[in-house]
Amino acid sequence: GASATRRGAATTSTAAPATQSYETLVEKLRQIEHLSGIEGLLGWDEQTMMPAGAAASRGAQKVALATLLFAEKTSSELEELLDQLSGEGALEADAQRAVVREARREFDLATKVSKELVAREAEVESRGYQTWDAARKANDWASFAPVLEEIIEVKNEIAAAQRPDLAAEGRLYDAHVDKFERGMSAERLDEVFSELKAGLVPLLRSVQAAAGDAPATPACLEPGDAWDVEQQAALCREVAADLGFDFEKGRMDVSSHPFTGGPHPTDVRITTRYSTGNWLEGIAGTVHETGHAMYEQGRLGGDSEFADLPVSRALSMGVHESQSLLWERMVFQSRAFWKYMAPKVAKYFPHTEGTSPEDFYAYVNRVQAGLIRVDADELTYPLHIILRFDLERKLATDPAGTVADLPETWVRRMKEDLGVDVPDNAKGCLQDVHWSCGAFGYFPSYSLGAIMAAQLYSAAKKDLPGLEEGIAAGEFAPLREWLHEKIHRRGSFPQSLDEILTEATGEPLSVGPYLAYLQDKYSDLYDL
Amino acid sequence: GASATRRGAATTSTAAPATQSYETLVEKLRQIEHLSGIEGLLGWDEQTMMPAGAAASRGAQKVALATLLFAEKTSSELEELLDQLSGEGALEADAQRAVVREARREFDLATKVSKELVAREAEVESRGYQTWDAARKANDWASFAPVLEEIIEVKNEIAAAQRPDLAAEGRLYDAHVDKFERGMSAERLDEVFSELKAGLVPLLRSVQAAAGDAPATPACLEPGDAWDVEQQAALCREVAADLGFDFEKGRMDVSSHPFTGGPHPTDVRITTRYSTGNWLEGIAGTVHETGHAMYEQGRLGGDSEFADLPVSRALSMGVHESQSLLWERMVFQSRAFWKYMAPKVAKYFPHTEGTSPEDFYAYVNRVQAGLIRVDADELTYPLHIILRFDLERKLATDPAGTVADLPETWVRRMKEDLGVDVPDNAKGCLQDVHWSCGAFGYFPSYSLGAIMAAQLYSAAKKDLPGLEEGIAAGEFAPLREWLHEKIHRRGSFPQSLDEILTEATGEPLSVGPYLAYLQDKYSDLYDL
Repeated sequence: GASATRRGAATTSTAAPATQSYETLVEKLRQIEHLSGIEGLLGWDEQTMMPAGAAASRGAQKVALATLLFAEKTSSELEELLDQLSGEGALEADAQRAVVREARREFDLATKVSKELVAREAEVESRGYQTWDAARKANDWASFAPVLEEIIEVKNEIAAAQRPDLAAEGRLYDAHVDKFERGMSAERLDEVFSELKAGLVPLLRSVQAAAGDAPATPACLEPGDAWDVEQQAALCREVAADLGFDFEKGRMDVSSHPFTGGPHPTDVRITTRYSTGNWLEGIAGTVHETGHAMYEQGRLGGDSEFADLPVSRALSMGVHESQSLLWERMVFQSRAFWKYMAPKVAKYFPHTEGTSPEDFYAYVNRVQAGLIRVDADELTYPLHIILRFDLERKLATDPAGTVADLPETWVRRMKEDLGVDVPDNAKGCLQDVHWSCGAFGYFPSYSLGAIMAAQLYSAAKKDLPGLEEGIAAGEFAPLREWLHEKIHRRGSFPQSLDEILTEATGEPLSVGPYLAYLQDKYSDLYDL
Repeated sequence: GASATRRGAATTSTAAPATQSYETLVEKLRQIEHLSGIEGLLGWDEQTMMPAGAAASRGAQKVALATLLFAEKTSSELEELLDQLSGEGALEADAQRAVVREARREFDLATKVSKELVAREAEVESRGYQTWDAARKANDWASFAPVLEEIIEVKNEIAAAQRPDLAAEGRLYDAHVDKFERGMSAERLDEVFSELKAGLVPLLRSVQAAAGDAPATPACLEPGDAWDVEQQAALCREVAADLGFDFEKGRMDVSSHPFTGGPHPTDVRITTRYSTGNWLEGIAGTVHETGHAMYEQGRLGGDSEFADLPVSRALSMGVHESQSLLWERMVFQSRAFWKYMAPKVAKYFPHTEGTSPEDFYAYVNRVQAGLIRVDADELTYPLHIILRFDLERKLATDPAGTVADLPETWVRRMKEDLGVDVPDNAKGCLQDVHWSCGAFGYFPSYSLGAIMAAQLYSAAKKDLPGLEEGIAAGEFAPLREWLHEKIHRRGSFPQSLDEILTEATGEPLSVGPYLAYLQDKYSDLYDL
């Protein structure tokens, strides 16, 4: 642990020169972290506060800062320190070795790609996003297809440069995935997703067959003008505070796409959007972003010797998503939660007075196979992800061939997997922004997060007797503290999702708890 | 002008190497400007949005950025370019020479002070502010006095380092003033302020004698709950937009101390504060900050070859203050303005319906000699400034002696100049934040701005027939455009307040128009 490390360094006199280099390294890494934090603020401001006319000046400010930051991140001084401290026996303490390891990983990712390639990447991603945006609006796959091919080719070059080891083994897609989910491989994902799909599809078929028997939605829960957005915002603030979002160390604002951002774990900024046409989206989004935010706010900081170092950062996108999904699905979509929540909704929306927790519970867990990933329920969502994973693997090995068949494949798979008919590419293979802006290899993290969330929640229930009775009473601190300890404060000390899950639950990533959770819940809801 | 310059550079083949260096210089200066813009955003965010718990991380972010920015501002590469381009005949175009001159001025100010001295300055200013804050609350001059002495001594050392020429002539105070008001001297200020005081004091005495005859304030204008702060904010947004604040290139928010800030002329952020206890402060503050903001939004930018260069920046604090004060006093406090404004106030505050423009006009121009500078009316305000100027001059030459007598001098002068009794130091010599945080030599700019505002407005009236009829009808574009042309787009091409005033009005700084304005206005208001 941390205190043992501190003692170790202080009493080992032979480590003196390394200790000095280590202190210098820490100082440099913190400098980089603070400048990255400023990038976080610029990004938040751009999406929430910045006037429209400032787009060009903001772009110039971001480039100016990124240029300086890149120089700091790739400096020869930093490299020398890392070389010095990476040597066998240079540092005695495991935790300090982890600090150097994480810093080295970031240094390598930043330096292994040529400036020319970075510039090509930026150009194609910017063009890719614009082309995609127009193509989706015009339902015009043909205009996007060649750019997508270009994007994949550039991303493949980068992945090969960053991970020559994986490229040499023909595992280029693993290099893409590794950037978001370290240590993960296509082979492993294939196993996990096959097991998941094998369990999900029959369950979904049963639910679809039984859908007619689902309880009717009370009229007062239907969208409409009664769901005043100011009242929604007030309700959401209260719920976020109850869950444990620390408003002393964060803010909550409105943006057109909800996100968690901001410059520092003491300044975490979440956004959401409210509409009278979909009241559930505002509150579910708030809970989701609160899950992300509590991970950030719960990181090692303050007086910790690891504060503001890469090792204190979130381990991976999958782990981050596990935190938002645990709160959104295992908590917000639970029967227990609505015992706490129904009276709170009625306080802000008196027209819902008398609606039972059970009615709310059924409403927030409606299952409906649809075309659009971001609108999907927890049962169908993984099937959207598995389709994208299958396509990404093929895209990485054969960009041209895969792009050529992509719309057809999409239509066929949506029918096979979800039973829905895709009317056009805009609602099909053009729906997601990810590939257009270069987030290639990201999709699997969403479902890894969901699987991990179920696994963590199952372990938390064992560790925390009375957890759900507490949730029904609005007591969220035990679960939050458990996550702080098991996940948030562990930062990137563990090196993979499997490692952190084994620490927290005794087992590596396992699909069982997720399938059991879904099976139990929907069997009950739909009387299967 | 700008286009002639551009042609000149393009057709002078011998200037090719200088042209290349010039382009490199421009690129470096813009990089610096963009990073400084980010500092502007960090500052704005800190005062408007940042959660309280983020103070420490924000401090670290600011230090990280300032460190990089200082390195950019003082780089040997920049120095070489400046040396190369400062040589006789290096650049043909006046405007390009002005670019180099302004960049050189900033480079010199940044490099002539040792790092050790900069660190001492930061330390004593931070300690100074904290000591002052506590001293004012406790009405405890003795605790602040020694720190003030230290501050002046450090600031004197810096001023001597930055301006050895002035220091050698025994004009150390001029070096202080020059940082805020370039080219200004104690001697000149003495002349200006003597003339001002000689005109003001008899006028003030007459007004005070006639104060009993002033029209009574209609009850509906008195502060109170009727002045809902949300309604105030809505009114203020409408008025700011009418005056010409461009909300596409700016924002308006709330902060405890109103200010104009933000990262760029296309992203100017003003703040104000609203209370039911003083409705006039919110709207007057909005107009004041809008004046500052329109200066920033009106700077050369867009496709101008001088966009984002030091030469496009505001010339001095006095000039900046002239823009806020012109709108606040010559416009907002004018009879014409309230013909436009009275119905607008009634729209948001129906309880004022039927109040005549003349009643409003009398209300916003009440004269009342008081203890506190920031609460002073336009007639007594300069007397507060002149006292501080007299003290600053003495402080610069004899810190210890002046600090020792300061409270006594303050009490005596407030009685002599304004006829008011100072009950304690908290409401006397401890009231201003400026000296505590090192803004030494700043005070004169406030009154230079007021004098300049009257001079500009007098010239605008000559240039723009029907100006005041237009204002009464809510037409502010002619005045705004006149200021854009005469002041805002002139940036720092002129090198002093006298130079820009001579361009705009045909005369250097002159007290006459200000005294005439006050004489006319208050003779009329008080039937003198």
